[in-house]
Amino acid sequence: DVEDLVESLHEADTADLLEILGRDERYRLMEVIGAGFDPEILPYLDETIREEIVEWLGPQGIAKLVQELDSDDAVELVQDLDEDHRMHILAALPQAYRRVIEESLSYPEDSAGRLMQREIVAVPSVWTIGETIDYMRVSDNLPDDFYDIFVVDPRHHPVGFVPASRVMRSRRHVRLDEVMDDDMRIIPLELDQEDVAHMFRQYGLISAPVVEESGRLVGVITVDDVVDVIDEEAGDDLMKMGGVSEPDLYEDVADTTKARFTWLGVNLLTAVLASIVISLFDATIEKVVALAVLMPIVASMGGNAGTQTLTVAVRSLAMKDLSEANASRFIGKELIIGVINGFLFALLTGVVTWLWFDQAALALVIGAAMIINMVVAGLCGTLIPLGLEKFDIDPAVASSVFLTTVTDVIGFFAFLGLAAIFLL
Amino acid sequence: DVEDLVESLHEADTADLLEILGRDERYRLMEVIGAGFDPEILPYLDETIREEIVEWLGPQGIAKLVQELDSDDAVELVQDLDEDHRMHILAALPQAYRRVIEESLSYPEDSAGRLMQREIVAVPSVWTIGETIDYMRVSDNLPDDFYDIFVVDPRHHPVGFVPASRVMRSRRHVRLDEVMDDDMRIIPLELDQEDVAHMFRQYGLISAPVVEESGRLVGVITVDDVVDVIDEEAGDDLMKMGGVSEPDLYEDVADTTKARFTWLGVNLLTAVLASIVISLFDATIEKVVALAVLMPIVASMGGNAGTQTLTVAVRSLAMKDLSEANASRFIGKELIIGVINGFLFALLTGVVTWLWFDQAALALVIGAAMIINMVVAGLCGTLIPLGLEKFDIDPAVASSVFLTTVTDVIGFFAFLGLAAIFLL
Ligand SMILES: [Mg+2]
Ligand SMILES: [Mg+2]
Ligand SMILES: [Mg+2]
Ligand SMILES: [Mg+2]
Ligand SMILES: [Mg+2]
Ligand SMILES: [Mg+2]
Ligand SMILES: [Mg+2]
Ligand SMILES: [Mg+2]
Ligand SMILES: [Mg+2]
Ligand SMILES: [Mg+2]
Ligand SMILES: [Mg+2]
Ligand SMILES: [Mg+2]
Ligand SMILES: [Mg+2]
Repeated sequence: DVEDLVESLHEADTADLLEILGRDERYRLMEVIGAGFDPEILPYLDETIREEIVEWLGPQGIAKLVQELDSDDAVELVQDLDEDHRMHILAALPQAYRRVIEESLSYPEDSAGRLMQREIVAVPSVWTIGETIDYMRVSDNLPDDFYDIFVVDPRHHPVGFVPASRVMRSRRHVRLDEVMDDDMRIIPLELDQEDVAHMFRQYGLISAPVVEESGRLVGVITVDDVVDVIDEEAGDDLMKMGGVSEPDLYEDVADTTKARFTWLGVNLLTAVLASIVISLFDATIEKVVALAVLMPIVASMGGNAGTQTLTVAVRSLAMKDLSEANASRFIGKELIIGVINGFLFALLTGVVTWLWFDQAALALVIGAAMIINMVVAGLCGTLIPLGLEKFDIDPAVASSVFLTTVTDVIGFFAFLGLAAIFLL
Repeated sequence: DVEDLVESLHEADTADLLEILGRDERYRLMEVIGAGFDPEILPYLDETIREEIVEWLGPQGIAKLVQELDSDDAVELVQDLDEDHRMHILAALPQAYRRVIEESLSYPEDSAGRLMQREIVAVPSVWTIGETIDYMRVSDNLPDDFYDIFVVDPRHHPVGFVPASRVMRSRRHVRLDEVMDDDMRIIPLELDQEDVAHMFRQYGLISAPVVEESGRLVGVITVDDVVDVIDEEAGDDLMKMGGVSEPDLYEDVADTTKARFTWLGVNLLTAVLASIVISLFDATIEKVVALAVLMPIVASMGGNAGTQTLTVAVRSLAMKDLSEANASRFIGKELIIGVINGFLFALLTGVVTWLWFDQAALALVIGAAMIINMVVAGLCGTLIPLGLEKFDIDPAVASSVFLTTVTDVIGFFAFLGLAAIFLL
């Protein structure tokens, strides 16, 4: 029956099943699972659905389940709840566990302190491999799985690490400081999760020690949680570029509509701005109606060329491939591309216009406007994201709307302005 | 001096340094490094720069370096080279190593077979922990680092795994099949790397065994390489949505211009299509020039609303959160959002139009067109990517251009068509 089926699923698959169901079916499934609900399902759930399940389980139920989780999963679960829920659940936890969770919650959102787990393997450097293995065989205070053993000095500062595989391969009498790697990446508590992800990516890390300001080892971040961060950050960037504040597949209609509305409202303002530019030339359009027919081409090509550059810039900034060291080379390159493609598409569009409307002057005007707008697109596609990054504004969220406003306004203004001068 | 500096850098940082330099400075740095070039730098390099370095080092130089790499890194290096380079380098390799590389190259691009390394720890299930540790202490045929030990039956089929940390924590007399986990995720050779990435993400894997069709264990995929795949796939999707075929920060001007040109050419065709729609109504525009002023608003709002939906669809498909099981719920939801936001923006735009042009009929026309276009946007934003996915076409690459063509054409047609009927 259904209970057996759920029992046989991996927790991640049960989470998917709960996500994919409609709300009513989801509640029915929860009733079938009932008290047999595996706490390990919770970390895999999308935030929206998790909040629903948490409500269903109630604070006492959740408090009991939370204690069975690793501290990082417990923190992730608790931090996403609304104030009220969180208070109730924290109050229902045993004092010691509660203090650990509250300490983690005191670190900034999206920081290493939130991401780390407190369960860690730390041993003194004077120990031998044999002593270390013996310790691990008897200690029942260790994390379920770990990948590196951290070697600490008497002040509990990390001085090196030994991958688990190397511990196994070394002879018992060897001292840890003989086999440990002291070229170690140490993560400060406050480091943003994006930077944590970058360190893991850059150095191919499996786990890394987290230290507080004094240098004392306080936790460990493992790659499986960093994979989630990488997915989250990449998803967020894609969403923001597409005018969505965050992935909303599981949000209900009301919340989704509200979030989408905001962005569309901003877009309406910029569209009206473009209309105002057009209205400056309504007398010209009245005389040469072909202008109305052709003007979206110039704006659209500028918008698309700019978006190409912008997309490369946003991704390169996120991956830290683009920085001040190579920014000017990037800007120069995109400017040249803008000029070349500007001329090529000026030629193409000019020829099409000439064949269509049989007016050489109109063809020249659209060609000139195309060059101007595509060069502007190349410039804005680089300068806007680089400028936003410099002022610590996320280039993914605000670039698109700036860029298309500029390419619309410049596109219409250049095309209609040149037409007003040369065609009347 | 520079040599010492480079010596002190992690290979990933040296790779970044080479990437961030201009071509001439890069060659100067290569000359300084010279014979001291660390082969481990190669896997970290961007493809474009790597090809340059490979050319600089020459086939003999590369062949010597390649042998020092893990087989997966060697394959990644060799596969990206052009035919000519690859032949030369393979010819310069020792026979045995060459055969391993050639076998990996025979698997499909972006498959598990290309991603796996051949160096693996596989032990029989009848062994004890003690025997396993003793074997690992003497064997010099093991990978540098590993995270799981795979337990195989006499046919060399994987039957379970033991995380390295668990080997360390178990007592010597315990048999592997007593502590091994037999609920294991096994990866077939042909599995696409996107699906490999999804398995790692879904089950929080650190490493996973790869088997050939008969079920025989042939390699292992590790999470550090999966992180690269996740980054690559996310970057590709973002690029495609932005009209860029692949990340081109390090490509030269000529290649970049060519790639960007193609996509802009497609966009030009669709822009001309929109212009043709407008030209159907040139007589109407001549009489009511306000139509030319306002028409970009309808098209732009439709395009943006559709892009929002499309972005969520593309990402949800990539993350396998959206499938046939919940597709109809998603379409229904987006349709409702289209209707609600359509009415809201019809109202807003209608009011603005009314205040601006003082024509109630014009306000009604733009409102009606707005509702039509935003509902169409919601529909196309879901149906286009779902349809493409169904026909095994990457929804990220082709969706945008389809969508904006539809919202432009429908936007102009609805607005100008309604105007022609009701305003003249
Ligand atoms: Mg899931
Ligand atoms: Mg999920
Ligand atoms: Mg978060
Ligand atoms: Mg962040
Ligand atoms: Mg964890
Ligand atoms: Mg986790
Ligand atoms: Mg970001
Ligand atoms: Mg790099
Ligand atoms: Mg690469
Ligand atoms: Mg692929
Ligand atoms: Mg590898
Ligand atoms: Mg690698
Ligand atoms: Mg893809």
